[in-house]
Amino acid sequence: MTETDHKPTTDAATDPDAAGAPEFDAAFRARLLDLFRWRRDVRRFRGDPLPPGAMDDLLAQAALAPSVGNSQPWRFVLVGDTDRRQAVKVDFEAANADALKGYSGDRARAYAGLKLAGLDQAPVQLAVYADMETARGHGLGQKTMPEMLPYSVVAAVNTFWLAARARGIGVGWVSILHPDRIAEILDLPADWRLVAYLCVGYPEEEHIDPELVRAAWQDRADPADFIVRR
Amino acid sequence: MTETDHKPTTDAATDPDAAGAPEFDAAFRARLLDLFRWRRDVRRFRGDPLPPGAMDDLLAQAALAPSVGNSQPWRFVLVGDTDRRQAVKVDFEAANADALKGYSGDRARAYAGLKLAGLDQAPVQLAVYADMETARGHGLGQKTMPEMLPYSVVAAVNTFWLAARARGIGVGWVSILHPDRIAEILDLPADWRLVAYLCVGYPEEEHIDPELVRAAWQDRADPADFIVRR
Repeated sequence: MTETDHKPTTDAATDPDAAGAPEFDAAFRARLLDLFRWRRDVRRFRGDPLPPGAMDDLLAQAALAPSVGNSQPWRFVLVGDTDRRQAVKVDFEAANADALKGYSGDRARAYAGLKLAGLDQAPVQLAVYADMETARGHGLGQKTMPEMLPYSVVAAVNTFWLAARARGIGVGWVSILHPDRIAEILDLPADWRLVAYLCVGYPEEEHIDPELVRAAWQDRADPADFIVRR
Repeated sequence: MTETDHKPTTDAATDPDAAGAPEFDAAFRARLLDLFRWRRDVRRFRGDPLPPGAMDDLLAQAALAPSVGNSQPWRFVLVGDTDRRQAVKVDFEAANADALKGYSGDRARAYAGLKLAGLDQAPVQLAVYADMETARGHGLGQKTMPEMLPYSVVAAVNTFWLAARARGIGVGWVSILHPDRIAEILDLPADWRLVAYLCVGYPEEEHIDPELVRAAWQDRADPADFIVRR
């Protein structure tokens, strides 16, 4: 990958601020709230492929996320190889079986009944990494909080997720994996840290509430419960 | 804070899926792209207070972010006390002076010229924490990737940031701080981990390009440079 970045144009006719900031009216904000509410973690996908160019478009939007020092540390790994996908699925199943051992009684039965990944169906699989050694940004903002690099990548994942949902495309974030094993499977630079393994595709169904609420695993709290004052 | 969560209503008349998923049309998606492009890290604020209820509304939207196992591990600390704010500012200045020492020559001069936080002007300061010991979610999805808890909180921060921008409210994420010192200043549970210290308020100016690009610190790369295939 090139480290050569593109200088912004200095042509006055294309001055990015010339048109001024757009208005985001009440109708847009109502839709935006819908988008936040209907963005789900999708585990059940249809097999239909995405339209040509869709992933490039969504990843370009993801790259508009904030990043510490404008470091842009996100690395998007499209996992298309069948053998690699199969190996990822095997790792998920091992990690999931291991996680189940941590529960007992009703909670274990509930866990065993959950569908937690769409690895067998999703047409696109995307492993999102943080390049922990990127020179971009020249270290700004990372000295006391080096976790800002993977945090920037999470912001890109969330942006991608919202952009996808606005196109009716579902995303599921799979964290029940062993990052070391995924690194072996995908053969990536040692400095790259796995942030998110995403299944992407058209969802089987649409829901406004999380599957884990419907499955009675965990309810939503009142957001006011999370606010404290100092 | 209560651990009692609210059961979803079972009244058919308020079945959340009954109306069906909304359409997000091309006009909305164009606006959403504008929102991504105009969301900036704001360091220069006007002193105007936010309208009553604005923060409650924005935090309720933040709480719609994805979270591992629906754990909702975000904790929003509104820092209003003047002495505490002053102590945070002192810590920022110490961390910033220390960071400057890591640069030399032109790069040091450039760093010293950057405005990196709006701590003296922003009407609202919000420290966003991850409750690393929350029982919500029952550990689902965290066993091999415990960082999923703070990552979930980053998703809430990004959601908050977009919701704020849609109301013309700016957000700046300050990471040039010592988390241990901030923990002392804010007197919070030991299990809470600082994810983001945010300055919130109306921005002095609007820009479509990042300040760090305008200041020639770091340009934007072509997003296609970040895509690899496996």
